Amino acid sequence: MSKDKIQVGLLGFGVVGGGTVKLLRDNAEAIARKVGAPVEVKRVAVRDASKPRQVDLPTGMVTENPSDVIDDPEIDIVCELMGGVQPAYDYVHRAIVSGKNIVTANKEMMAKQGNALLREAEHRGLDFNFEGSVGGGIPIIQPLKQALAGNKFSEIMGIVNGTTNYILSKMTAEGADFGDVLAEAQAHGYAEADPTSDVGGFDAQYKTAILASIAFTSRIDLADIYVEGITNIAKRDIEVARELGYVIKIVGIGQDLNGELQVRVHPTLLPKAHPLASVNDVYNAVYVRGDAVGDVMFYGRGAGSGPTGSAVVGDIIEIARNIRAGGTGRMGCTCFDTKPARHISRLETKYYVRLVAHDRPKVLASLASILGDFDVSIESVVQHPLPNGDAEIVLITHKTIEANLRSAVDVFKRLDIVSAVQNSIRVAE
Amino acid sequence: MSKDKIQVGLLGFGVVGGGTVKLLRDNAEAIARKVGAPVEVKRVAVRDASKPRQVDLPTGMVTENPSDVIDDPEIDIVCELMGGVQPAYDYVHRAIVSGKNIVTANKEMMAKQGNALLREAEHRGLDFNFEGSVGGGIPIIQPLKQALAGNKFSEIMGIVNGTTNYILSKMTAEGADFGDVLAEAQAHGYAEADPTSDVGGFDAQYKTAILASIAFTSRIDLADIYVEGITNIAKRDIEVARELGYVIKIVGIGQDLNGELQVRVHPTLLPKAHPLASVNDVYNAVYVRGDAVGDVMFYGRGAGSGPTGSAVVGDIIEIARNIRAGGTGRMGCTCFDTKPARHISRLETKYYVRLVAHDRPKVLASLASILGDFDVSIESVVQHPLPNGDAEIVLITHKTIEANLRSAVDVFKRLDIVSAVQNSIRVAE
Repeated sequence: MSKDKIQVGLLGFGVVGGGTVKLLRDNAEAIARKVGAPVEVKRVAVRDASKPRQVDLPTGMVTENPSDVIDDPEIDIVCELMGGVQPAYDYVHRAIVSGKNIVTANKEMMAKQGNALLREAEHRGLDFNFEGSVGGGIPIIQPLKQALAGNKFSEIMGIVNGTTNYILSKMTAEGADFGDVLAEAQAHGYAEADPTSDVGGFDAQYKTAILASIAFTSRIDLADIYVEGITNIAKRDIEVARELGYVIKIVGIGQDLNGELQVRVHPTLLPKAHPLASVNDVYNAVYVRGDAVGDVMFYGRGAGSGPTGSAVVGDIIEIARNIRAGGTGRMGCTCFDTKPARHISRLETKYYVRLVAHDRPKVLASLASILGDFDVSIESVVQHPLPNGDAEIVLITHKTIEANLRSAVDVFKRLDIVSAVQNSIRVAE
Repeated sequence: MSKDKIQVGLLGFGVVGGGTVKLLRDNAEAIARKVGAPVEVKRVAVRDASKPRQVDLPTGMVTENPSDVIDDPEIDIVCELMGGVQPAYDYVHRAIVSGKNIVTANKEMMAKQGNALLREAEHRGLDFNFEGSVGGGIPIIQPLKQALAGNKFSEIMGIVNGTTNYILSKMTAEGADFGDVLAEAQAHGYAEADPTSDVGGFDAQYKTAILASIAFTSRIDLADIYVEGITNIAKRDIEVARELGYVIKIVGIGQDLNGELQVRVHPTLLPKAHPLASVNDVYNAVYVRGDAVGDVMFYGRGAGSGPTGSAVVGDIIEIARNIRAGGTGRMGCTCFDTKPARHISRLETKYYVRLVAHDRPKVLASLASILGDFDVSIESVVQHPLPNGDAEIVLITHKTIEANLRSAVDVFKRLDIVSAVQNSIRVAE
């Protein structure tokens, strides 16, 4: 039964594919010892074989026909590194049906179709690993599924998008505007030409969906994950937050509230002492809270050829060991439950509200009174005079129901004494 | 082949044993779903069955005869949670010979005899997990062996002893003396009545040996790990370090320097921005540097019934899944190499030296000249006048060879102008 070598096929050969092949080559001898047999890349399917690559492949290894990977009887493990839902999903599904173990780093496919694929692989006794889909090289999926599997998790919280963390870190460090930093990030290749998926929070939404579904053993519909990007964060918000002892980060948060799941991605004021508050630049970190282990955090580079290649190769090694031991399919889909989603309007959180009002007596009293009407109380407030005679008022509320806070802010917007409500941002504890 | 339940036996039932049984009970249903079969504790061997316990066990489950666990043909997994090398080693060895998969949280046994036990288990196709031996509930051994297995590691660095981190954190936060904080920690149960193993750095030495042997795929002899505890750290060192932008922590460090291993445990000045610098109180954290993944950090509670119980149960779940899939023994000992040790005298590091000298012209010039004789150059220096007319001089050197620095300090000690060399501490970058 024990095979004398493990053969791998790749679908897609971009940044992550290059990192994967490079690592399998650089550390081939050490990997062979760990597995007990050499791990070799046999075939790589790409869209355009003539395109130049950062990592050279021998002639004959590259093909433009994905079936050359999917249907090759000698290939044990298929790595899908193309990204996107289609045609990746169809290829992976066909590979499972053709008896291949799967490794993928495809967050969108896993967030949208992971459940079906995992069940199909489990049904056929195959392994299906996807460590690279969240947090680049940071081990987080394997630890949640294995080392921490004894825990019931109540909360996960992560900085899972490097581009937006880089932008917010730069805005914080340099007092720069969002637009300027985004342009600079695009020039450096840290942000895409179309940055919507990152700055709109959708990339983080996929990753948070994956983490939450594992932690809470329940499939989570993307439509049930509230998402808000960072395009409305002004450098003034960052300044004022700092004065109040907070750092602004875009965070993916999942909570299991007595069996209801509240999962969301949005800019968040984190107290400076929070472990995630000092995670800067392109670094990612994921924080989880288990009933036995308490709080645990994982930190590292969230993207790139080396880090994500490391995750893919780790997945390959695990499967290769299982193949050698004759025991693939030992861990299937862990979404056993169908827990209902709790709507964002029912969120209980502290809130930061920044507004401009006429600088008259009793303005603050009026605002506080309106908040009181909606059962919102104020924890702290700072007021700065503005050159035009108005005042900037920044409130941090006590924990409140989101719907109530939003109603109060709607009333603020209609007040004569309020020139503008400039931002309202959730605050973590 | 697939068993309809997985049965576990415990050797030892202290803090960790109690946490393990509690967690297996509290989350029994979820664990059964993850494994595909219930995981049940069948027998628990203790030294004194009459001793009262925090977690109740049914009559008939407890025995004073370890053979009732080791030789029970129905038991699949033996968890050794006694601590110490003997008789733990003999029991574990017998259990392996009798065909049991092993889980242990015993750092001393693993640091001293882990190699032999792992090879014996591998030889018999059995699993042997020891996640709880380092960092309490923090997943670190599994990630190094699996998710990060594709990497070649150049460095590991960890705060792996909660007692000393608590003491140093308190000394830092409160400006307190070592002796006072130790007494308080003993009163709270954070430090043992005999604190030698913690404050002398020996507990950290075992854990660093385990981490380094996995990261560098080489067995490491404890005698080759330089160890220095925290008993000589004065509150004045902490104050002065802070002025210079550093925090003092006791850190376990391992480096693979072109195939030579330099592994050591000692107090270290960490720059305030270093990820380990903000790890406080009883928290632990381990930082690793891999060629592909870059820097990764793992953070959480380093000890206690819940966290270490979480690690033990995670190990049990992994083995239970392997038993169900018919594939135990998939990952054996990974100490393939015998890399030579590099002596501490050859360490290249920056150094902090605090001394008291007569406050006369040219004292600093004399000290700098002596350092220069040993090829040591100064990065920064601060001088404070003392009430008695002497001066406190604190030097941070550039990177230097440890032996040279020590020779220079020996010369300092013999100088008439130097009243006392009060401390010298290594500085990390």
